[in-house]
Amino acid sequence: MPDMNDPSYLNTVAEVTIAPSGQGEELSTYVAQVIKVIRDSGLPNQTNAMSTVVEGDLHRVMEVVEEATRVLAEQGYRTGVSLRLDIRPGKRDQIHEKVERVDRILGGESR
Amino acid sequence: MPDMNDPSYLNTVAEVTIAPSGQGEELSTYVAQVIKVIRDSGLPNQTNAMSTVVEGDLHRVMEVVEEATRVLAEQGYRTGVSLRLDIRPGKRDQIHEKVERVDRILGGESR
Amino acid sequence: MPDMNDPSYLNTVAEVTIAPSGQGEELSTYVAQVIKVIRDSGLPNQTNAMSTVVEGDLHRVMEVVEEATRVLAEQGYRTGVSLRLDIRPGKRDQIHEKVERVDRILGGESR
Amino acid sequence: MPDMNDPSYLNTVAEVTIAPSGQGEELSTYVAQVIKVIRDSGLPNQTNAMSTVVEGDLHRVMEVVEEATRVLAEQGYRTGVSLRLDIRPGKRDQIHEKVERVDRILGGESR
Repeated sequence: MPDMNDPSYLNTVAEVTIAPSGQGEELSTYVAQVIKVIRDSGLPNQTNAMSTVVEGDLHRVMEVVEEATRVLAEQGYRTGVSLRLDIRPGKRDQIHEKVERVDRILGGESR
Repeated sequence: MPDMNDPSYLNTVAEVTIAPSGQGEELSTYVAQVIKVIRDSGLPNQTNAMSTVVEGDLHRVMEVVEEATRVLAEQGYRTGVSLRLDIRPGKRDQIHEKVERVDRILGGESR
Repeated sequence: MPDMNDPSYLNTVAEVTIAPSGQGEELSTYVAQVIKVIRDSGLPNQTNAMSTVVEGDLHRVMEVVEEATRVLAEQGYRTGVSLRLDIRPGKRDQIHEKVERVDRILGGESR
Repeated sequence: MPDMNDPSYLNTVAEVTIAPSGQGEELSTYVAQVIKVIRDSGLPNQTNAMSTVVEGDLHRVMEVVEEATRVLAEQGYRTGVSLRLDIRPGKRDQIHEKVERVDRILGGESR
């Protein structure tokens, strides 16, 4: 697995949501199982009301998403995954910098 | 437009990303124009590295997303929009509660 | 509503999935209600295994998506929507041309 | 890699879009490179105006998506990926059956 200083490292910010289908309308116990895998990965991550944002090398991010998906799918649930990736070769710490760049332009923060 | 106490109010948490295509790799000045419309809407909102989360009645959220999209599309840019909605009739303040429910189960916060 | 010859027409190809959460694993009767609204809109559309692709002016597409969403949400279901838009001012019939351009380059079709 | 008859096979229908950012508004030559990888994978697939739908075991699908992403990211482009998965353990050939179930209910096809 390439580390951040390796030229083959492909910096990736991912936004991921993983949830079962058909297990009732209250999904937080399922979603918590998924987020635990992401937090345990050691990658920087932030959870908001719709998804979890996580940053790392492309291959490592894909591994973590698959592992988190398996937590639900291997229990036999129909499982839905939404994943968006922003890959910027040569960049680092985009999980913080992307928001700071916009806030700097707008001169403030979201409420 | 129904307010929160109106029975026809359809509580919606939206996750939205709007960006031009083909305007170079640095998109923050474009993204800032979009986020300004969302912040000026008066709806509760939070921006993270991949998208902006905003909460309100379904119709109002759709209006704000369209208005924010027009800021770029009416300048003639090819414009991409990613939108995910979680509509829970009868609920309120899901932008905060959804994260709190998961953190309560996991006993902590993302780093 | 601008028609295709109006300079304010903003050509939009949308990919949309709308489904209830917590109503069991078999969703086709719910999804059929949604797709019926899209087909009845009169806009060109195609349904595949993951979503429905529809093309029209930006505002009309947003109206149809909201109307299709209301079919489920107004029955009281927690409802999830995934929507991606590709807006190309000045273009027409992208629902067919986008695929043809790629097939022309690759010299064939998907199986 | 589990085959379809292996109990560990996790049937996955994926909808994926991969494109560079900042390489102009005409993306078909880039998108064709991505779709070639997916077609060469041997997995059943269909391309529409917004994405490519592909079906296989969860792990194999994730591998193909990563491989197709690398085609652009390893050329140094900022690369965006949108991926949605519908995993139904125990099911097969959902790429065709999901559409047929809906068409059967509605008694027709999209135009």
